[in-house]
Amino acid sequence: MNQNVPTEQEVAAPSEGRRGRGGRGERGGASARRAARSGGGPGQQLTYIRRSIKPYEVLDEEGLSLIEANADTILEEVGIEFRDDPEALKLWKEAGAEVKADRVHFPKGLCRELLKTAPSVFTQHARNPERSVQIGGDATVFAPVYGPPFVRDLEGTRRYATIEDFRNFVKLAYMAPSIHHSGGTVCEPVDVPVNKRHLDMVYAHMRFSDKPFMGSVTAPDRAEDTVSMARILFGEKFVEENTVVINLINANSPMVFDETMLGAAKVYARANQACIITPFILAGAMSPVTVAGTLTQVLAEVMAGAAFTQLVRPGAPVLFGTFASSISMQSGAPTFGTPEPSLVSYGAAQLARRLGLPFRTGGSLTGSKVPDAQAAYESANTLNSTVLAGTNFVLHAAGWLEGGLASSYEKFMMDIDQLGMQQRMCEPLDLSENGQAMDAIREVGPGSHYLGCAHTQANFQTAFYRSSIADNNSYEQWSAEGEKAANQRANQLARNWLDAYQAPALDEGIDEALNDFVARRKESMPDAFA
Amino acid sequence: MNQNVPTEQEVAAPSEGRRGRGGRGERGGASARRAARSGGGPGQQLTYIRRSIKPYEVLDEEGLSLIEANADTILEEVGIEFRDDPEALKLWKEAGAEVKADRVHFPKGLCRELLKTAPSVFTQHARNPERSVQIGGDATVFAPVYGPPFVRDLEGTRRYATIEDFRNFVKLAYMAPSIHHSGGTVCEPVDVPVNKRHLDMVYAHMRFSDKPFMGSVTAPDRAEDTVSMARILFGEKFVEENTVVINLINANSPMVFDETMLGAAKVYARANQACIITPFILAGAMSPVTVAGTLTQVLAEVMAGAAFTQLVRPGAPVLFGTFASSISMQSGAPTFGTPEPSLVSYGAAQLARRLGLPFRTGGSLTGSKVPDAQAAYESANTLNSTVLAGTNFVLHAAGWLEGGLASSYEKFMMDIDQLGMQQRMCEPLDLSENGQAMDAIREVGPGSHYLGCAHTQANFQTAFYRSSIADNNSYEQWSAEGEKAANQRANQLARNWLDAYQAPALDEGIDEALNDFVARRKESMPDAFA
Repeated sequence: MNQNVPTEQEVAAPSEGRRGRGGRGERGGASARRAARSGGGPGQQLTYIRRSIKPYEVLDEEGLSLIEANADTILEEVGIEFRDDPEALKLWKEAGAEVKADRVHFPKGLCRELLKTAPSVFTQHARNPERSVQIGGDATVFAPVYGPPFVRDLEGTRRYATIEDFRNFVKLAYMAPSIHHSGGTVCEPVDVPVNKRHLDMVYAHMRFSDKPFMGSVTAPDRAEDTVSMARILFGEKFVEENTVVINLINANSPMVFDETMLGAAKVYARANQACIITPFILAGAMSPVTVAGTLTQVLAEVMAGAAFTQLVRPGAPVLFGTFASSISMQSGAPTFGTPEPSLVSYGAAQLARRLGLPFRTGGSLTGSKVPDAQAAYESANTLNSTVLAGTNFVLHAAGWLEGGLASSYEKFMMDIDQLGMQQRMCEPLDLSENGQAMDAIREVGPGSHYLGCAHTQANFQTAFYRSSIADNNSYEQWSAEGEKAANQRANQLARNWLDAYQAPALDEGIDEALNDFVARRKESMPDAFA
Repeated sequence: MNQNVPTEQEVAAPSEGRRGRGGRGERGGASARRAARSGGGPGQQLTYIRRSIKPYEVLDEEGLSLIEANADTILEEVGIEFRDDPEALKLWKEAGAEVKADRVHFPKGLCRELLKTAPSVFTQHARNPERSVQIGGDATVFAPVYGPPFVRDLEGTRRYATIEDFRNFVKLAYMAPSIHHSGGTVCEPVDVPVNKRHLDMVYAHMRFSDKPFMGSVTAPDRAEDTVSMARILFGEKFVEENTVVINLINANSPMVFDETMLGAAKVYARANQACIITPFILAGAMSPVTVAGTLTQVLAEVMAGAAFTQLVRPGAPVLFGTFASSISMQSGAPTFGTPEPSLVSYGAAQLARRLGLPFRTGGSLTGSKVPDAQAAYESANTLNSTVLAGTNFVLHAAGWLEGGLASSYEKFMMDIDQLGMQQRMCEPLDLSENGQAMDAIREVGPGSHYLGCAHTQANFQTAFYRSSIADNNSYEQWSAEGEKAANQRANQLARNWLDAYQAPALDEGIDEALNDFVARRKESMPDAFA
C-alpha cells in the first residue's frame, strides 16, 4: 500500500549570517509588486504574504462544534499513545492525564487549557532580517518541497538525490521572490552518511540562503546539532529569546507519537523553537474515509501533540499541521488534488483558528511522475484550496512530484510562478480613484480601446501578473520557437538561474565557526548508511 | 494585438427527441455519486450541480455599492451604443432613455426597473427531461468549449475543424457524466458553407445528444432557423411556453452592441428563449486595466443589454455573462489563469446575485498551445474560481485550448475529469453519524490502520473521487506501462469513448422532419464561404 507514501522526514539545522535582530521586513512597495508580477525572475524578493482576502469556510458553527466535541471524546475515551518516551508519560501524568502503558487519556478541557500558553502569532527570524516571516494571523509563508529521496533532474533523469541537488534547490528557493522560506529537506542527500547529512543540510540553508529554514527531526541529537548551529549563526542569547527554526513533528497516525518525533519535539520546544504538529494522513488508511471523521482524528492528534509542547515549555511556538491526502481504494496509492483533501484542509484551517494556533497544510501536491498536465491540475487544485483556506505555513509549495518521492527542478520553476499568482491574489482589491478607473472609461468611450489611454499608460507595468513560464504568443510564433511545452521552458529557466546564482554575504568568522562545528561533529562518529 | 483573440461566435440550433415535458431530472442517488467518483467513464449521467457550498466573495457591501453607483453613472453620462438597429433605438426612446445617434443614455434606475421582469431562476429543457437543467440559484451547469476554428486532433495535428469533429465533440459531451449541457459551437465546422453550417450544428446537437444546447447567433435568420428546428423537436406550443435554447449574445466591448448580436437577441427574446449577455473582456484592451474599473464597465454593459431583452419581451430569460481575461501588456496576447480574471469573476458573480440574474463566467481557459502543464495550471485556476464564485452556467468547461482558437480532444477528456471533481466538491459535507465515523475511530484505535475496518468496507466505493486520467501508481509500474503523460492517457480514453458511442433514440418522424427542414433551407440559398 505504501510504495508511494512520501516520508516527510528530516531537515537541516540553522546557524549564521547577519546577526539576529530579525524584525519583520518591510512589505515592499511598487517595486515589490512589479517583482510579484514578473513571476519570479531572480529579482526583487517579496515579503511573506499578508492576506487581504477572506478565508473560505466549509463548516458552520454546528459542524465545528460537533467535530470539536467528537475530538474531545476521542481524547478522553480512546486516548493517544506517546510511545517509548517515559519522560513524556511522566509529564502527562503530572498534568492530570490518565496514563495506561503508553496510552494517554485526556480529561475534557485539559489540552485546550494547556494550549492557552501557545502563541497564535510569532516571528521566525532569518539571518537577513528582511526575510524574517510572521507565522500565524493573516500571514502566509511559502516553503519548498520537503523529504523526497529522488530528484527528477534537468536532463530528465530520475535518480537518487545528492547534496549537490540539495544545494541547488536551496539556491533556487533563495532566488525565487515568491518563496519566503528556505524549507528543510528540499531533497534527501543520500550520498552523505545518514547520521551526518543533517549537518550538511543545515549548513547549506545557512550558507546559500538568507531566508528562514527548518531543523532536523530525525533524532534528538540531530535536533541538538541544529540548535547548536543556530546559536553560532544567530548568537546564543538571540536564540534563547527568539524563534529561528521551525520543525516538522509528524504524528504517526492514527493516534500515535513515536520516540523519534517526541525526542525532537522536546529539544526544540525546550529551546523555544517552533514545532509543526502534523498528523500525516492518507485518509482511508491512517484516518476514516470521511471528511468529518478525518477532521475529528486530526484535531484530537494535534491537540495532544501541541499541548505536549506546552508541557515541555509553556509559550513555545507550535503549529496546527495537517497533511491531507486520500488513498486509492483500488490500489492503495495516495491521491492528490481531489476534492476530499481540499475539504479536509478547509475544515482543519477553521478548527485551527478556533484553537488559536497558526495553521499548516497543503502545497503543490501531485501523484504524477512527470511535470505534465496531471501534475499541474493536482497542484493547482491543492494550492488554490491551501491559500483560500487561510493557511499560514505552506510546506511543499514548490518542486513536489511523484507523491513526494521526487523533487523536480522543472516543477519547482513552474510552481513558483503559481505562488507569485497566489501572492497577487491575496493583495487588497484596489477601490481607490485609480482603481475605479472612471476617467479611463469616460476617456475611451464606446467602440474604442484602452491600449493607449492615460490610465493604461500609468498602470500597465503593474496592472497584471506576468508569468515567467506561460507562453501566450500566437500558435505560429510558438511553433517557430520550437513548440516547447511548459516544462521545457521551466528547464531553461532553472539552468539560467543556477548559472546566475550568487551567494548572500556571510560573516567569515561565523562561516568558519560553522564549518568547524560540522567537521568536529562528523569526526565524532563513524559513517552510518541506514 | 488580437491574433490570439478567441471569437466565441456562432452556435447550433435545436430541435427533436423525446417530446417536451422537460421537468427537472432526479438528482441521482448512490449510483450517481459512484459515477461522479469514477471520473466520467461513459456511464451514469450526473444531474446538473446543486451547490451545497457557499460562494466565495471578494467585495464587501461598500465596494459593491461603489461599483454599482459608478456603473449607473456610466450608463447615464457615457451611455451604451446600440449600433445599426433603429428598432432597438426606438424601443429605448419609448422606454424613457435619451438617444443621440446610436448612443443610448439611461436615466438612473431605468435598467434596474426593466430587469425586475427577468427571472432569477429558470429551466432550460432538454429533449430528455432528465437532462433538463436549472439555470440560476444554487445550480451550476457545465457546457463544452465554444467557438474554436481549429482542432488539435487525436493524431496530435492542429488543423481546421470539420463537421466530423463537431459531431465527435457532441458525442463526447453526451457521454461525459459531468457535462450537463451539449453547448453550442463546440468547434467551427469550416468545411461547411458559412451560411449553412448552423443547420448541421443544430441538427448534430439534436441528433447525437439528448442534453440541452445553444442556438445560432451569427445572423437573425440563423437564429430563426434555430427556433424553427426547436419547434420541430419540442413542439410549437412547448417552445412558446418554455425555454429550450440558450444563446450567447456578446457585447462588443467597450460599450457597444452591434447589429448582429442585437438581431439574434431580438429573435430569441421574442421566442421566450434565453440570452447570455456577455461583455467579452480582455482587460487592458476592452476594459480598464483595473479589476474595479472592469467590473464597473461589465455591470453597465450587462444592465443595458439584459434590460434590452426585457424591452423586447418582459419575462424573457436572460443571464449576466462575463468573459474575463487580461492581455499581456508586452505582446497584446490574451492571458488566462492569472489572478486578475479570477477577481473579476468573483466580483461579477456578486454583482449578478444582487441584480437577481443567473450568472455565466469562466470555464477551463488557457493560452497554451498544447495540453501541457501550462494548460492545466491555467484551466484549474480558472475553473476553481468559476465554481467557487457560484457561477450558474459555465461555458468552455471542457476542451478549450490556445486562447479559444483550438478545441482539443485530449484537453476535453482531462477537463471533464476535473469537472467531476468540482461536482463532488459542491456536494454537502456529510455530518451524519456515518460521516462522523466515531465507531471507526474507536474500532481502529492507536497504531493500527483503517483499510479493513467495517466503516471503510461500508463506504469505500463512494468515499473518494476516482479520477479517470490521473496515474497514481508507483514509478516502477508507471514506467513499465510506457511512461505515459496525462494527455496520452486522455488520448486513449477519447478513442475508446468514440468507439463505444451509441446515439440516443430519436423519433423517426421528428428526425425526418428535421432533415427535411435542413435540406430545404440549404437549397434555398447559394453556398457562402465568408
